[in-house]
Amino acid sequence: MALIVQKYGGTSVGSPERIQAVAERVKRWHDQGHDIVVVVSAMSGETNRLLGLAKAITPDPDPRELDVMVSTGEQVTIALLAMALMKIGVAAKSYTGTQVAIRTDSAFTKARIEAIDDVRMRADLNQRKVVIVAGFQGVDDEGNITTLGRGGSDTTGVALAAALKADECQIYTDVDGVYTTDPRVVPQARRMETITFEEMLEMASLGSKVLQIRSVEFAGKYNVPLRVLSSFGEGNGTLITVDAEDDMEKPVISGIAFNRDEAKLTVRGVPDTPGVASRILSPIGDANIEVDMIVQNVSADGSTDFTFTVARGDAKKAQAVLELVAKDVGARELVSDDKICKVSLVGVGMRSHAGVASKMFATLAKENINIQMISTSEIKISVVVEEKYLELAVRALHTAFDLDATAA
Amino acid sequence: MALIVQKYGGTSVGSPERIQAVAERVKRWHDQGHDIVVVVSAMSGETNRLLGLAKAITPDPDPRELDVMVSTGEQVTIALLAMALMKIGVAAKSYTGTQVAIRTDSAFTKARIEAIDDVRMRADLNQRKVVIVAGFQGVDDEGNITTLGRGGSDTTGVALAAALKADECQIYTDVDGVYTTDPRVVPQARRMETITFEEMLEMASLGSKVLQIRSVEFAGKYNVPLRVLSSFGEGNGTLITVDAEDDMEKPVISGIAFNRDEAKLTVRGVPDTPGVASRILSPIGDANIEVDMIVQNVSADGSTDFTFTVARGDAKKAQAVLELVAKDVGARELVSDDKICKVSLVGVGMRSHAGVASKMFATLAKENINIQMISTSEIKISVVVEEKYLELAVRALHTAFDLDATAA
Repeated sequence: MALIVQKYGGTSVGSPERIQAVAERVKRWHDQGHDIVVVVSAMSGETNRLLGLAKAITPDPDPRELDVMVSTGEQVTIALLAMALMKIGVAAKSYTGTQVAIRTDSAFTKARIEAIDDVRMRADLNQRKVVIVAGFQGVDDEGNITTLGRGGSDTTGVALAAALKADECQIYTDVDGVYTTDPRVVPQARRMETITFEEMLEMASLGSKVLQIRSVEFAGKYNVPLRVLSSFGEGNGTLITVDAEDDMEKPVISGIAFNRDEAKLTVRGVPDTPGVASRILSPIGDANIEVDMIVQNVSADGSTDFTFTVARGDAKKAQAVLELVAKDVGARELVSDDKICKVSLVGVGMRSHAGVASKMFATLAKENINIQMISTSEIKISVVVEEKYLELAVRALHTAFDLDATAA
Repeated sequence: MALIVQKYGGTSVGSPERIQAVAERVKRWHDQGHDIVVVVSAMSGETNRLLGLAKAITPDPDPRELDVMVSTGEQVTIALLAMALMKIGVAAKSYTGTQVAIRTDSAFTKARIEAIDDVRMRADLNQRKVVIVAGFQGVDDEGNITTLGRGGSDTTGVALAAALKADECQIYTDVDGVYTTDPRVVPQARRMETITFEEMLEMASLGSKVLQIRSVEFAGKYNVPLRVLSSFGEGNGTLITVDAEDDMEKPVISGIAFNRDEAKLTVRGVPDTPGVASRILSPIGDANIEVDMIVQNVSADGSTDFTFTVARGDAKKAQAVLELVAKDVGARELVSDDKICKVSLVGVGMRSHAGVASKMFATLAKENINIQMISTSEIKISVVVEEKYLELAVRALHTAFDLDATAA
């Protein structure tokens, strides 16, 4: 029998009926003899309703008071789920972040968990009670209510699993797992049985937004087995694990991520002198623009081309900054292009396999897709191509790297 | 400069706009140099919304979990009011019942306050902060959230005033004070400047539902000056005090209460033997029916008539119980009448004034109103009359006892 932490998001607990469905699911696991700790979010829409009340009072609400208010959303859900479990004969008890206690620092609206007291939860589990904990919230040393900010409920689930040394942390969402790529682009995309934390981080940051990055980092750090699965259907979902056991069957490439939200800026004819890259990028950073890929090629005639990508919404602002800088560093020309996209192969398997990059480039060449930029890391290869080729590129690569689902 | 506890009910904080109006009112008091502690209820409608969610899950929700859920209503209001105060430049800090802490027993949904910790509140007041406390809720020794049940927020206000030894506890409602009688019945009804706790208890239990009885008892017990006033208009409201200072101007009668929700049951021809009253009333109590007035007259021929009143909704049930009992005690006849009402004169002044009763009876006789029952206590005389005479009786008495407002 295992100790399992289950986390259900706002859509999964969005109505009394859905809360009852969650209770039935929890009961099935509990009936199998497992000890269950459940973390829940606020009912979908509730947090926005509360924020709306605050905005009606002031555009700039005090963060401490905002946390007092917003934390009520999860507090309502824990009570409703406890009632629903008791109604179907399962002993259950709810806890707010304060009651557990989930100790955090005092950074209201974006607090970080420092410690979790497991005494009360252990006592309840020993009595075969289901323990229900409000996600997203904690309490600081002065007894102030805090919230964890974005992705907070996932983080609560992982942190509880770490504190309780749970056998698994299950994150229930509206998708049934992590896919080799977006099924809307590649109908043959396959659900992965497992994926490593590193791969998951690359997939997530590249646009496969199944889990909040912070909770994945947290799970990796504390070695908590994390499973993503659907709160509406059945199935095993996708297990996120530490570096894969040496699995001979494991494919070289795990998945293909892509991102349309990119724009490319090139400064041509930059004098190839030390410090020039920093002189170009510092003003960009100062303007609070995040830079993604950066490519600079070798110098031909004492000058070089410097290219980087930013989020598409930042392109105009970046160009305005660059126009000043380009003059300053003596560059010849400034070119920007927001009709691009990024396609990335992700897989820990490529560490030990040569030839992934050349196979990728050959596949794209066969489809007459021109590669504009290339960037690599240990478990990822990214290319920038014209946006109109996105679907074609992803489908061709999905087939070439044997990711297509076999017909059932 | 005084320490004042102010309590605002659900209607007074029913929208962001009204919360801002409360903030303005609090600021005016604070600007005068007073130390202010504010107790608030949930926004009107919110508690019913939450109870509706619970009822959608189960008709019989667990009381502990109900309190976890329902207590969020006040938690939202304290945060919004704190934000509204800070927006207009008043330092403020909110506290849940757990945070204060307001210690209660563990009787979920109807807990009783046992102790209040004033350390945090004192520290804030010393820094000239307005302290905002969630009404209606507390925390038990195990850290469970409790609620106080009916009238809970008034009780929180009085209990905080007692714990802090406040100079005054102000209860803001949608009426501007306690009136000599219902102004809808007697247009000349006057707002009282003061009323004693005892009078207030008699007025409240007789149907002038301005304050929850429990909070008035509490205020009397701990000698907390209580003031009822309007959260929408201006004015001094009505101050509820310990036994009135010997005020020569104080009228004999303070007010006239009445209640239409009464039914009368008479058991005729009961053998006048010891224990017969108890044999009649015990089965009524066993059936959970509350009895109000009880009258038994002297015996004439070894048998007597026994009459009592109950809430009108209980009349049928009481009659069914009595039919069995009447046979049992050998009574001759059973008569019930629900076309009656009760009219009561209330005033500590009548203690020292003879002739109040005879003046009352004479006034009613002059209007040809027949008195069916009479019952007296130290500061109250109640009569039961036909319901159709209610307005006439109250107006005649209001004039006869000099309660009418003089034309301004």
